[in-house]
Amino acid sequence: MTILTPSIPPASDATTVAPHRPVQAVPDRRIVLYDTTLRDGAQTQGVDFSVVDKQAIATELDRLGIDYIEGGWPGANQTDDAFFAHPPKLRHAVLTAFGMTRRHGHSAANDPGLNAVLRGGTTSVCLVGKSSDRAAELALGVTPAENLDLIGDTVAEAVARGLEVLFDAEHFFDGYRRNPEYALSCLQRAHGAGAAWLVLCDTNGGTLPEQISTIVGAVAAALPAARLGIHTHNDTETAVAGSLAAVGAGARMIQGTINGLGERCGNANLTALIPTLMLKLGYETGINEDGLRRLTEISHMLDERLNRAPNRHAAYVGENAFAHKGGLHAAAMARDSTTYEHISPERVGNRRHIIVSEQAGRANLLSRLAEIGITVDPDDRRVPLLVETVKRREFEGFTYDGAEASFELLARRILGEVPEYFRVASFRAIDERRWNARGELITMSEATVKIDVQDQRQMTVAEGNGPIHALDSALRKVLLPLFPVLAGMALVDYRVRILTPRDGTRAVTRVMIDSHDLHATDLGRWSTVGVSGNVIDASFSALHDAITYRLFRARPEGVDA
Amino acid sequence: MTILTPSIPPASDATTVAPHRPVQAVPDRRIVLYDTTLRDGAQTQGVDFSVVDKQAIATELDRLGIDYIEGGWPGANQTDDAFFAHPPKLRHAVLTAFGMTRRHGHSAANDPGLNAVLRGGTTSVCLVGKSSDRAAELALGVTPAENLDLIGDTVAEAVARGLEVLFDAEHFFDGYRRNPEYALSCLQRAHGAGAAWLVLCDTNGGTLPEQISTIVGAVAAALPAARLGIHTHNDTETAVAGSLAAVGAGARMIQGTINGLGERCGNANLTALIPTLMLKLGYETGINEDGLRRLTEISHMLDERLNRAPNRHAAYVGENAFAHKGGLHAAAMARDSTTYEHISPERVGNRRHIIVSEQAGRANLLSRLAEIGITVDPDDRRVPLLVETVKRREFEGFTYDGAEASFELLARRILGEVPEYFRVASFRAIDERRWNARGELITMSEATVKIDVQDQRQMTVAEGNGPIHALDSALRKVLLPLFPVLAGMALVDYRVRILTPRDGTRAVTRVMIDSHDLHATDLGRWSTVGVSGNVIDASFSALHDAITYRLFRARPEGVDA
Repeated sequence: MTILTPSIPPASDATTVAPHRPVQAVPDRRIVLYDTTLRDGAQTQGVDFSVVDKQAIATELDRLGIDYIEGGWPGANQTDDAFFAHPPKLRHAVLTAFGMTRRHGHSAANDPGLNAVLRGGTTSVCLVGKSSDRAAELALGVTPAENLDLIGDTVAEAVARGLEVLFDAEHFFDGYRRNPEYALSCLQRAHGAGAAWLVLCDTNGGTLPEQISTIVGAVAAALPAARLGIHTHNDTETAVAGSLAAVGAGARMIQGTINGLGERCGNANLTALIPTLMLKLGYETGINEDGLRRLTEISHMLDERLNRAPNRHAAYVGENAFAHKGGLHAAAMARDSTTYEHISPERVGNRRHIIVSEQAGRANLLSRLAEIGITVDPDDRRVPLLVETVKRREFEGFTYDGAEASFELLARRILGEVPEYFRVASFRAIDERRWNARGELITMSEATVKIDVQDQRQMTVAEGNGPIHALDSALRKVLLPLFPVLAGMALVDYRVRILTPRDGTRAVTRVMIDSHDLHATDLGRWSTVGVSGNVIDASFSALHDAITYRLFRARPEGVDA
Repeated sequence: MTILTPSIPPASDATTVAPHRPVQAVPDRRIVLYDTTLRDGAQTQGVDFSVVDKQAIATELDRLGIDYIEGGWPGANQTDDAFFAHPPKLRHAVLTAFGMTRRHGHSAANDPGLNAVLRGGTTSVCLVGKSSDRAAELALGVTPAENLDLIGDTVAEAVARGLEVLFDAEHFFDGYRRNPEYALSCLQRAHGAGAAWLVLCDTNGGTLPEQISTIVGAVAAALPAARLGIHTHNDTETAVAGSLAAVGAGARMIQGTINGLGERCGNANLTALIPTLMLKLGYETGINEDGLRRLTEISHMLDERLNRAPNRHAAYVGENAFAHKGGLHAAAMARDSTTYEHISPERVGNRRHIIVSEQAGRANLLSRLAEIGITVDPDDRRVPLLVETVKRREFEGFTYDGAEASFELLARRILGEVPEYFRVASFRAIDERRWNARGELITMSEATVKIDVQDQRQMTVAEGNGPIHALDSALRKVLLPLFPVLAGMALVDYRVRILTPRDGTRAVTRVMIDSHDLHATDLGRWSTVGVSGNVIDASFSALHDAITYRLFRARPEGVDA
């Protein structure tokens, strides 16, 4: 385990640092990354981590090269207790427990809440205390002087127990604006008691980057021997810039979360900060080039765990971050990618996308086809047919921007490359809610399907947890013996959008299905789309494409290529 | 129509400004807002504006107090042509047409593309030109000297036709870093030819706020008589901070979009910039306090038009921007809201939310109830039951964070306030795809429902464009004569989420339904949730809540209160 203790500016007064922590010289360009996805990120509205989630995410963060992973707050809830009781094995990162200063009226040694944190089993703890006289009075009901004692006693107790202490100065920027002397005295107290890091928190997210720069600069001047960190929130959409401003003014630790998770508008987004620090500003982190190339994957992994649709517009890692839609851009891109790309997408594990859209001309479409490995002569007589078909379908409500598998199938069908593996002659689905024999209200779905496959008509019936699942089950009953490769395929997400009537057209329903294959994870997720006036019809089309895509990817039939 | 021509710093050399434009003295604190939602925002992946959309959005932006509205690119596509042929009536904003410099080999007077823009019918045009020698060579195939002629001729031609000209300097920051003299000479040429504004564009979004500040400062020093604007993109998640940095260095126009719409990672988000400029930095804009209070509404209106789910975490306007989940925060909030709120949410038309969540304790729940107008004695014996019920349901997969109507019904049911307007004894839905008599493949959905309502059992059957629509139609056949208030109610969105099995639990489906009432728009949208192992069952529960909520809001029965 590497203990990361860069000192900015180089510690001129090392005696104020608890002597038992090994101080390792780290150059000025080294930024320490502190991830609080599992603690502050868990405050996100709609987010709820299980213990298994926390373990898996911590392992990934460690592999990425994050320096500190805040796992949670021992004693605050059962999930966090279970996580600290069974922490994951980390190769690089320091697992950190979060807690707060002792309560008024308890000694630090006897405060039950604090003890749960200090006995959480970590070598490092992050302890939050008020750094605003007003917040101390309002939230804790203590005088400013008593608050200083809470801070000093708490840090000293943790240091005395051999722990590395990070002090999170809550409401620091608001407190500093209100009473700079008092805010500084809170930091001095923590520093004097042996805190290894002083982290300045913009708790309500209201401080702008320029103000952060000024205040961090003032703190660095007042406490030249202290190592400073920054903790921002995105309430003005400047959390990333605020963290960068703090680094520019001397902070050397950034506390943030993957994908900017966090309550209200989120915390500083490490997924955006890491590549900016490394690729644009020349800072070092615990992440190497290989780790950086895993950034997109880790961002998406977190969303998958949380069952959230990834933000397609996210900086660096979003699916659209390097997407080009307009014909003008796509043409210029072909000449020189740096014109419209600020970095090479491969460096963060992302890739360039040429988007198929209503604005798409022939050039865009050909670029898009080349991207998925289909080379077509621009003069091929089928190209105008493909352009027209895409335009007509988009007019009907299809969108291939987000349903890449359906687009690929559409193109390959027009090019005559996709066999009709099976044909559905008719189907019927029945959903029934009724009282069963045991007096329980139950809802059952059942589907009957007539399929022509390999020159034979087959009719099957199956149950499911809804009409689409029942239809899927019925299809599989016929298809699985013929195409064993379908065994691992599963539906991951199902989204329905009602396209409201505009410009006098009739309302239609668009269904998007995401699928994956448990036995062929290299395929990733694939997305298909169906559009119809009837939602079952639209769903069935998307399902049909999803199965066809899997079979096409498995050529020769039934066996993975 | 007010022509807004602030000058920063106060024009010391007014003769370089085209003499026919009335120069109006505007104080140094006035920021001109230029909205490009309808042009650069239309490049967003997945976004496609109709003419009607553009007209409606422009009208809203004008009401808000935006100074310039870029409507599109005349001649580029049919939608933009139709929009400029039928522009909306604006009270405050200047409608602007976008275009590019003349092509090499055409005179400005005879360039067909440029003429389409200059004849678009606006009094103001925004013309983009290259300001990087490399981009000029690569993208336009002209020498740096020829590119200067393209800029000068184009601006001069537009000015000669009596138009106000804004010059968008494409790739300015990359160009300046590469060759500052050349980049400046492009600006000088546009300025000398009479451009009213020089807008510095960070086209590929790769420039960080500090670099923007330095370069804008250098430009302001080199061209003291010019009015400068800034146009940033969010590729490093710092577009908002970059715009603020430019303003700090002397720029007085910001080009951006509502909700940060735009290709790749989006443009600078005006929805975040406006309140920061006005409430935190003391700048004036064309927006007054009343306009600012409509910001949240306008942000959501745009999402509704585009059929996108609003970003709940958006700065200022997101549903969670002032949401408080943790018990610690909620308790402190009750004492002093400024502790965790950087501004008062009402100032931007948003409101505080106390989130109901698994972490919710009694205090949170009571705050949440108070927020929706339900006052309960904390010692009421029903409170523990409500806390337990919410926790149990959230464990089952319900989420009331996002389904406020279902939460309110749950609470009021436990408090005995919600009558059972109707009870569904059983239902059956059938979806069938078959060939009809005319040889067409059609899919039909039909539902049969047995309902007990007002002491009578009724059985009905109806068709729909899917099983849920058919069930809804069957319900309405019975309910509408008894509750005429349901006539205006319509389903707006329907979202299905499959909750993947974790920790050994069984997979369930969560359905969220958004409804609104065409005849009672003051009700806004209301969201309901249903969870079940069967998607039809979950959908039906959400639908049942949606109808019940509408009826409850219309007390006394069937008549709007």
